[in-house]
Amino acid sequence: MNIKLIYSLMKADIDLIEKELERAVKSHSPVLEDASVHLLQAGGKRIRPVLLLLGAKFGEYDIHRVKFAAAALELIHMASLVHDDVIDDALIRRGKNTVKAEWDNRIAMYTGDYIFAAALECMTKIEDREAHRILSYTMTELCIGEIVQIQDKYRFDQQLRDYLRRIKRKTAILIAASSQLGAIAAGAPAHVHRKLYHFGYNVGMSFQITDDILDFTASEKELGKPAGGDLLQGNITLPVLYAMENEELKTRIKAVHAHTDRQEINEIIHLLKQSDVIERSHFLSRRYLDRALAILEELPPGRHRNSLRDIAHFIGRRKY
Amino acid sequence: MNIKLIYSLMKADIDLIEKELERAVKSHSPVLEDASVHLLQAGGKRIRPVLLLLGAKFGEYDIHRVKFAAAALELIHMASLVHDDVIDDALIRRGKNTVKAEWDNRIAMYTGDYIFAAALECMTKIEDREAHRILSYTMTELCIGEIVQIQDKYRFDQQLRDYLRRIKRKTAILIAASSQLGAIAAGAPAHVHRKLYHFGYNVGMSFQITDDILDFTASEKELGKPAGGDLLQGNITLPVLYAMENEELKTRIKAVHAHTDRQEINEIIHLLKQSDVIERSHFLSRRYLDRALAILEELPPGRHRNSLRDIAHFIGRRKY
Repeated sequence: MNIKLIYSLMKADIDLIEKELERAVKSHSPVLEDASVHLLQAGGKRIRPVLLLLGAKFGEYDIHRVKFAAAALELIHMASLVHDDVIDDALIRRGKNTVKAEWDNRIAMYTGDYIFAAALECMTKIEDREAHRILSYTMTELCIGEIVQIQDKYRFDQQLRDYLRRIKRKTAILIAASSQLGAIAAGAPAHVHRKLYHFGYNVGMSFQITDDILDFTASEKELGKPAGGDLLQGNITLPVLYAMENEELKTRIKAVHAHTDRQEINEIIHLLKQSDVIERSHFLSRRYLDRALAILEELPPGRHRNSLRDIAHFIGRRKY
Repeated sequence: MNIKLIYSLMKADIDLIEKELERAVKSHSPVLEDASVHLLQAGGKRIRPVLLLLGAKFGEYDIHRVKFAAAALELIHMASLVHDDVIDDALIRRGKNTVKAEWDNRIAMYTGDYIFAAALECMTKIEDREAHRILSYTMTELCIGEIVQIQDKYRFDQQLRDYLRRIKRKTAILIAASSQLGAIAAGAPAHVHRKLYHFGYNVGMSFQITDDILDFTASEKELGKPAGGDLLQGNITLPVLYAMENEELKTRIKAVHAHTDRQEINEIIHLLKQSDVIERSHFLSRRYLDRALAILEELPPGRHRNSLRDIAHFIGRRKY
């Protein structure tokens, strides 16, 4: 099924989640509310809520219960983006000013904290204790992922396994938890929601690798910021790791620092795109995607499983 | 009873909470763990856990259950301190380097996030949903308090009610929640744990006012930093609000900015101490304390109530 069709079939439920997101960040502090609404309006694909809703279809689907878990997961994702932007000194995200750009770092830090707290408030509506355990585990891993990412910056001697462990923490676990928590909130059996976790994990790995490829291959217009931003910031992603197997590229990449000029970055991007590293990166992304699809086969068949398959394809193969 | 005696009678249980705190921040990331342990070892009076334990005595006291709530509250307090230090650019707290001084702002931000997440992980052991609602409410109010504190900096035209609302959010609600959550975790009836909330709120207000007084009256050695730091940072506390009723002091206070020299700050402190503002501030602190003590009278009498009374006295009247 077409991805747009899936979204449109779920539109009424997604709208309820949007309402819940708005309600959750309502505040007596105008700045906090403005900053949070600013973030909400920046939109995004709401991938986590959509996966959560589809996961819930494997249990007793009740949107008025699962919407709280969906909002909580999206809020945690948003909060982590606000704090990322502080760390990365990012002024633009999704083509809009970041909270730190529109206000400042201090407001951005507390906006992130506030959105985390708002996520918890949503979660108090979910009774299942395993759901809470998964959520707190997800949040601690997310923080560890962020810290490791800082520590690994410009560390050009890292291995593929460092990269994979990092994106697992930074991205895949939250997507895994999203897929699983809907099923848990809807009372689906353990063998189903655990499979959904592994499905989400593999989708998340594929998603992040694709994201890291797009940072080199997408246009500035598509990205909403200049290409090669990850490299400039010292984030050693999969294409960079592959590229460093070539001695010339390795030498030039290792010389990159925060103030490397645009021309040099563009030249590295050009060389990188001429080599096979993009193709090889896509190959690994697709391997994770294939694993996700294989796990799906073990779930009860039906419309929801088909939708998950289509979403997985969309996420793993998106162009920007 | 002597406050030291109360602590020594509770020592075995406080030690269990310390162990739980250490367990909670254990991490695969050495930096996160080091930064968190660094914070734990900076100590503090563990007022929140102690109030929580005493509150729990009004129900079915089981340290192996309530210790999780106690650790969670202390972790939330610690996390908010780490983020405060980023905002205040503080290098020293309790006579030790802050996380931001020992590492940097980025590590401090994620350490705070991580400790928040660790607090949630502790809370997953507590089943009562009202406890979770109170906790998430406390965290959102805490964030709003922090934001408002930033916005109110150097805003010399604020009113007493702005100050009171701010310290309620920043300090009193967390202490109120500590007093209440122990009782909830121990299954005490609602009329008891709600009174404990109001008791804690009033103790917290008294506590923060005393803290704000000490910033002017305690020695640099006692504070672990130079006196008058709040004023220099533009935090308009109760003594400052009272002092501005005097025209001369008002003019000099309104001229204070982040780079006002030490001599001018010292002169303002001197004038302020010569006036009646310290005494008047103590008076308001004592009024909150008296209200806390009056609420205690409505609770079932006994040894635990007496301990709460003594702790309240200690908190409200401490010298540093």
